[in-house]
Amino acid sequence: MLRDADQGFVDHLRGLLSEPALRAPEPRYLEEPRGRWAGRAAAVAVPGSVEEVATVLRACNAARVGVVPYGGGTGLVGGQVAGVGPVPVLLSLERMRAIRAVHAEENVMEAEAGAILQDIHAAAEAADRLYPLSIASKGSARIGGLLGTNAGGVNVLRYGNARDLCLGLEVVLADGRIWNGLSRLRKDNTGYDLRNLMIGSEGTLGVITAASLKLAPRPAGEGTALMVVESPAAALSLLSLARDRMGEGISAFEMMHRTGLDFLAEALPDIRQPFDTPSDWFVLIDVGLAAGLDPAAALEALFADAFDKGLVSDGVIAQSGAQRRGIWEVREQIPEANRRIGSISSHDISLPMGEVAAFIERGGAALARLGDFRINCFGHLGDGNLHYNVFPPKGRDRSEFRHLGDGIKTCVHDLVDAMGGSVSAEHGIGRLKVGDLERYGDPVKLELMRGIKDMLDPNGILNPGAVLRARG
Amino acid sequence: MLRDADQGFVDHLRGLLSEPALRAPEPRYLEEPRGRWAGRAAAVAVPGSVEEVATVLRACNAARVGVVPYGGGTGLVGGQVAGVGPVPVLLSLERMRAIRAVHAEENVMEAEAGAILQDIHAAAEAADRLYPLSIASKGSARIGGLLGTNAGGVNVLRYGNARDLCLGLEVVLADGRIWNGLSRLRKDNTGYDLRNLMIGSEGTLGVITAASLKLAPRPAGEGTALMVVESPAAALSLLSLARDRMGEGISAFEMMHRTGLDFLAEALPDIRQPFDTPSDWFVLIDVGLAAGLDPAAALEALFADAFDKGLVSDGVIAQSGAQRRGIWEVREQIPEANRRIGSISSHDISLPMGEVAAFIERGGAALARLGDFRINCFGHLGDGNLHYNVFPPKGRDRSEFRHLGDGIKTCVHDLVDAMGGSVSAEHGIGRLKVGDLERYGDPVKLELMRGIKDMLDPNGILNPGAVLRARG
Repeated sequence: MLRDADQGFVDHLRGLLSEPALRAPEPRYLEEPRGRWAGRAAAVAVPGSVEEVATVLRACNAARVGVVPYGGGTGLVGGQVAGVGPVPVLLSLERMRAIRAVHAEENVMEAEAGAILQDIHAAAEAADRLYPLSIASKGSARIGGLLGTNAGGVNVLRYGNARDLCLGLEVVLADGRIWNGLSRLRKDNTGYDLRNLMIGSEGTLGVITAASLKLAPRPAGEGTALMVVESPAAALSLLSLARDRMGEGISAFEMMHRTGLDFLAEALPDIRQPFDTPSDWFVLIDVGLAAGLDPAAALEALFADAFDKGLVSDGVIAQSGAQRRGIWEVREQIPEANRRIGSISSHDISLPMGEVAAFIERGGAALARLGDFRINCFGHLGDGNLHYNVFPPKGRDRSEFRHLGDGIKTCVHDLVDAMGGSVSAEHGIGRLKVGDLERYGDPVKLELMRGIKDMLDPNGILNPGAVLRARG
Repeated sequence: MLRDADQGFVDHLRGLLSEPALRAPEPRYLEEPRGRWAGRAAAVAVPGSVEEVATVLRACNAARVGVVPYGGGTGLVGGQVAGVGPVPVLLSLERMRAIRAVHAEENVMEAEAGAILQDIHAAAEAADRLYPLSIASKGSARIGGLLGTNAGGVNVLRYGNARDLCLGLEVVLADGRIWNGLSRLRKDNTGYDLRNLMIGSEGTLGVITAASLKLAPRPAGEGTALMVVESPAAALSLLSLARDRMGEGISAFEMMHRTGLDFLAEALPDIRQPFDTPSDWFVLIDVGLAAGLDPAAALEALFADAFDKGLVSDGVIAQSGAQRRGIWEVREQIPEANRRIGSISSHDISLPMGEVAAFIERGGAALARLGDFRINCFGHLGDGNLHYNVFPPKGRDRSEFRHLGDGIKTCVHDLVDAMGGSVSAEHGIGRLKVGDLERYGDPVKLELMRGIKDMLDPNGILNPGAVLRARG
């Protein structure tokens, strides 16, 4: 049973840490990007070393005070905001943001958990390398949180998600023990895989304090195209064709619906529209090719081949870096347009690739039976990962539809589950989807998760209420 | 406390299963490839379905009888042979060898755990796809064992190890519960990563009964070269250069020492030697390139560039499939030559890439102080993974040196550990390296492993004595 972090405990904690030991729980620590919940915290601990992180956890564990690990605060499922239950301490890694080493010849970087993704990108680039993980919030997201939530983003198709880009971790356990697993090794079969157990556990099993990350060579040449496709099925065939032609050279393959362009026109009219007369579906293809291949020429040849096969009907191929950025801006600003328009219910889902087209058809039909909505379906088609967001009709506000939110979510998630998909492809469970995990998760998996949680955090201090329901 | 599987228990088990429920423990089930140990078993259970696997485990768990999961029997660390402790039952998945489905457009295959690697290769090829995991024992190794041990092999550099090539698992737990995690999804962030916990746990946490596997497109063109390098450091620079030029196109990058050629000449004289006057070090480079690139030409251009940079002095580039196979045969027959000559001590180690060259120098010097040995150092340089095997001088037999085996092993492993490496890169812990794991493993990691083991298998029936010491 946890108890509130009261003033006495906060003072005790302050005494254990070097200055600046604690910060006040300013509003920025207690909000989340979509404004769904407000969190609470007695204080924000800002330790300066792994030993101080251990000190915080030991003290909280002894006092039965909850600890909410805090990265960049960009998570979309409320993993970073605890609004109910005993008042916790926030544990922010913001002071531990060093990039400790870049081993360019090994393609390895070692970074502290508080390092911001954009700084990691810059450090990799300075060594002529690439850290491929990339998400819209890269200017604020910290690597500890990205690993804790196993973040995905636009380059998963080629390079994998945060899990696939990590070689080793340093983790502090609930009782303050420190596991040093900061390996630079590509291969190490000595015992159980604790690294992957920690990655994606959303701060409920331990606090990541440092990581060794995989870097990649920078592709010699990059190119980007938008192509109009007849249907999601045609988009998948285009992906197959592109892979046949360019192998691993496809870095991103993002599908968008015309609704995304409409939303941009409505909410962000300064963004240049790519087509005069948009069709329903289009894809962004990003390639990074080895020396000796011309990306724009390769994309043109792909387009010609796909046109002959009836898969694409129109297209734009970037001829410059500025044009590449313009195409990417269309894709990257869709979440912001969504935010401004305001969804009734948002879904981060994945499906077996072969079921994506059928899902889009069946999902649209099922929602039409619930009401008149606009669906903005876009996302990482190459991973079977759709952001499937449901909005009110034009001119209406989501506040009128709030009562339908749960029904819409259940309708979408039930269908995803029935088709072998996942109700959280890349955002995680956090506090938002605890009920979904209970509803759709394999029961044996849930039992094992509970067993692992109880073994690693018997007092339940780590991110209470996230992923698994807090013990009463 | 476990007890022997006696005749009464064996009869009981037979009654629970459909025919052929059990096989006699013939010698082939009780041997391991290097002839180090003999195993014991009261019977070999050969269940025909996941439910029957669950029946076996439930019965053994209730009776406190140990179960040794058995794949193809090709493991090199004794994970499949229990020579001490109460007599166990062997659980062979050999009847569950179906390839259930190939989803070619998704690049996914679903296979039962008993499927043999070569059959998986053939099924992928029939769908114009590639299952990249490849090891010398592919004709016998079964996918359940390959996942249980997180097998590596020659294509890890490009495609990752068994772990990286798996999307989902079906696993039976010690008490007979079945976890159905047979996902075809590329992205799924719903809860803790049990898949990776099971992969590489060597049958000590559960029994894998089926898996969904990642396939890859087949490269449009493949090529292979042998190049003579001045030193291991030059080999690493050559790898960097090759990656700069060909990106992900490098499928394998294997380094060998002249000792390997000498051993082939001595033990397998029919194998054609690639060089008239061999130098000390050479590398096998295998590439698979996208359409539009000529692999042989790309390798020739790489050679020319490397020659100009002083990295290579001689080379052979295959001009035909037969020549490719000839080059690969040199690499693939080295383990067989080693086996015939007979090592005093063999080591499957990995190092941070930047430490490989220094390790080879320091390892050779340290061993020279222990005696006059021949060292055959070869392996997956692109992964920092060396097979570092120590042999008697020419004309002497290893039986004369057996007393030095432990000292040699400790000398090598201590150095590896001091340099941040791993004492089991790809073969696992099994029963051979339990002591090494205790000696070199992070103590907190070992505590967590024990906690996970006790939680998942409280009676310790699963592969007792492998990875972790059996409870007394």
